[in-house]
Amino acid sequence: MPAASRRRFLSQGVALSGAIATGRGIAGDAKSDTPPGEPAWSRSLGAPILASPYGVPSRYEANTVRRQSPGLTRTPHSSVAFTPLASLFGIITPSGLHFERHHAGVPDVDPRAHRLIVHGLVREPRIYTMDDLVRFPSVSRIHFIECGANSGMEWANAAVPGVQYSHGMLGCSEWTGVPLAVLLEEAGFDRKRARYVLAEGADGASLTRTIPIEFALDDVIVAYAQNGEMLRPEQGYPVRLIVPGVQGVSSVKWLRRLEVGDAPWNTREESLHYVDLMPNGVHRQYTWIQEAKSVITSPSGGQTIAARGYQEIRGLAWSGRGRVKRVDVSTDGGRNWRTATLQEPILPKALARFRCDWRWQGEPAFLQSRVIDETGYVQPSIAALREVRGKRSIYHNNAIQTWRVAASGEVSNVQLG
Amino acid sequence: MPAASRRRFLSQGVALSGAIATGRGIAGDAKSDTPPGEPAWSRSLGAPILASPYGVPSRYEANTVRRQSPGLTRTPHSSVAFTPLASLFGIITPSGLHFERHHAGVPDVDPRAHRLIVHGLVREPRIYTMDDLVRFPSVSRIHFIECGANSGMEWANAAVPGVQYSHGMLGCSEWTGVPLAVLLEEAGFDRKRARYVLAEGADGASLTRTIPIEFALDDVIVAYAQNGEMLRPEQGYPVRLIVPGVQGVSSVKWLRRLEVGDAPWNTREESLHYVDLMPNGVHRQYTWIQEAKSVITSPSGGQTIAARGYQEIRGLAWSGRGRVKRVDVSTDGGRNWRTATLQEPILPKALARFRCDWRWQGEPAFLQSRVIDETGYVQPSIAALREVRGKRSIYHNNAIQTWRVAASGEVSNVQLG
Repeated sequence: MPAASRRRFLSQGVALSGAIATGRGIAGDAKSDTPPGEPAWSRSLGAPILASPYGVPSRYEANTVRRQSPGLTRTPHSSVAFTPLASLFGIITPSGLHFERHHAGVPDVDPRAHRLIVHGLVREPRIYTMDDLVRFPSVSRIHFIECGANSGMEWANAAVPGVQYSHGMLGCSEWTGVPLAVLLEEAGFDRKRARYVLAEGADGASLTRTIPIEFALDDVIVAYAQNGEMLRPEQGYPVRLIVPGVQGVSSVKWLRRLEVGDAPWNTREESLHYVDLMPNGVHRQYTWIQEAKSVITSPSGGQTIAARGYQEIRGLAWSGRGRVKRVDVSTDGGRNWRTATLQEPILPKALARFRCDWRWQGEPAFLQSRVIDETGYVQPSIAALREVRGKRSIYHNNAIQTWRVAASGEVSNVQLG
Repeated sequence: MPAASRRRFLSQGVALSGAIATGRGIAGDAKSDTPPGEPAWSRSLGAPILASPYGVPSRYEANTVRRQSPGLTRTPHSSVAFTPLASLFGIITPSGLHFERHHAGVPDVDPRAHRLIVHGLVREPRIYTMDDLVRFPSVSRIHFIECGANSGMEWANAAVPGVQYSHGMLGCSEWTGVPLAVLLEEAGFDRKRARYVLAEGADGASLTRTIPIEFALDDVIVAYAQNGEMLRPEQGYPVRLIVPGVQGVSSVKWLRRLEVGDAPWNTREESLHYVDLMPNGVHRQYTWIQEAKSVITSPSGGQTIAARGYQEIRGLAWSGRGRVKRVDVSTDGGRNWRTATLQEPILPKALARFRCDWRWQGEPAFLQSRVIDETGYVQPSIAALREVRGKRSIYHNNAIQTWRVAASGEVSNVQLG
């Protein structure tokens, strides 16, 4: 927020802390020059150092966890657990809260026994240990991962109560690993014939996906670290692919095999699943890119605005094609829009945090956000998206999300027009 | 690394995976076009989803933890646990591995009972609940925190074996909170008389530090979130100060009181401790800024280089005065220097990850890194620093670190000249 507008809101809004404090019965303290009485924890020794050699959240934050959507999948081994977006801040998703999506559960891979093979249209096939991979030239980049099915339940109607389930197959981390291009060069891939790379996981599903060679030679990472440390088991430990900007299923976890070829493989997860059923009955196949999308995370569905007055509207925006350029916010269902503030730095194919001042005086409201990316693409309404793609798709729903604020302050998931 | 130099290293170094693979007995596989036999985890179901609603690292990474330096402090309540820098990647420090420094242990603060008071030279004192603070306009920024005593044990000699103890009072996170300037404006601070702000923690030590008003109005954050989620208890839950670029003790944890004044307070932790004993017997006081510093984290003390050939030298650089501009690396104790590659984006007062190709052929080597920041300041040698500051300081040791590589590949902590 520019300093000028911040000052304006503050001068209009001196009631912020005063009114809130009064409403909570600490008005006496608020007017005095005396600090409140010392709490017990200021009069005693706390826990000794290294209570947790590997730290964990406060016991008061036990509600901030990944969750399954009841009934969404038939087995807990081929399922989804969603990121609690409404409780998060900034752009980094804590690794312990990053959404999970598995097709045969989480394998317990021993990194000493794990191998990665690179073969197919190469001069010399290679097999790497984890020590080999970590010795290669490395790169670290902050990128989002979004499942192609994120917001899939919203194609037909406003199906779920809040943003954890509507948009929570989304995370953003600093990934470190070897550029895939380095491994392909090292194996001497056939520059004339190579058009695709197949990636296969070491899980029980042997999940396999075709990656175009243009992606593979651009910014794909064979990643062994997330947010500074080795990958978590449910994120592909000890090594996974990161295909920036592309639907999450392509970022194959527990990566064990990379095959260079001249045609797509048409594996199960790219011919039976992860295809888009269009209104004319045709399936769109190989729809890689996650187009520009945004969502307001606070206030959002399931929350209740506690008091009238100042609210900072906060949300996330991203684009599989590069950088977020602008985010607009509406509080009246899209009739009027204001430009939100974007938190720097804005990174390509990464989440961007946006914020927008709002003063809620108890009126019913419809909150929306709309992102425009650096290609000029504008996030569509759900109505516009349905005109082209119908209501029977599962994947690639990047429509504008609407949250309805009732006079009571309760926020709910709705669809307009 | 530029593409050209990467190709050069790869063409000179085809032995990388071949030789390593052969040395480990998988040469047969490495030469064939057949993937290695399927491991057990590829032929079975893994763990079900939500095995951990809040995820934890793999059991194979149990060695990557914070550690105490034996005998460094007399009690476990006023002590230090160090970040395992040698095992980390990129610039984000996982919150569970961020170093700890406490003066009276870790208080178990109930966020519903916690209050922050803003008073002193203000028009109207304010008392905020956590809900109040989270409602304010917010900002998210990636900044390092380094304890002023980091590398303090190295003033006299090369005292500790590895980088966890020599440089591990260091971390870097995405912090989210209210700009302190917003809270000071909200309270109507006295613009004519205000010159300092006192910050006090809610721990048993009531740790207090003086902050100059120029810092307070610039980039100081009253932060409630780290790396996307609410602060961890040992990082100041539910709210702490972040004073970017300044020695860590100023980033007061469990923040309960901010007092605006016209002179420094000379509290215990800024008059008896956190002062620099100079050769002439005088104490330097209020030495805020953490000057530019860098360290190689791999290879580093205590490690053994497993095989000759390609090694990527990796390290971290930072400056309390802004952005890192350049990092040079020497493998011969400072006679020759090469410019390292810096990982983008380079952010102000944040860690920067640098990398440099190296081909080790078994010769003894002395690895050093030297940072230059955007002000033009050059990281000094330990000899140059001792000429000015003697050997009896504890704080603000930002000297160049030397790691000796023996012919055996063993890496140790040494000091040159």
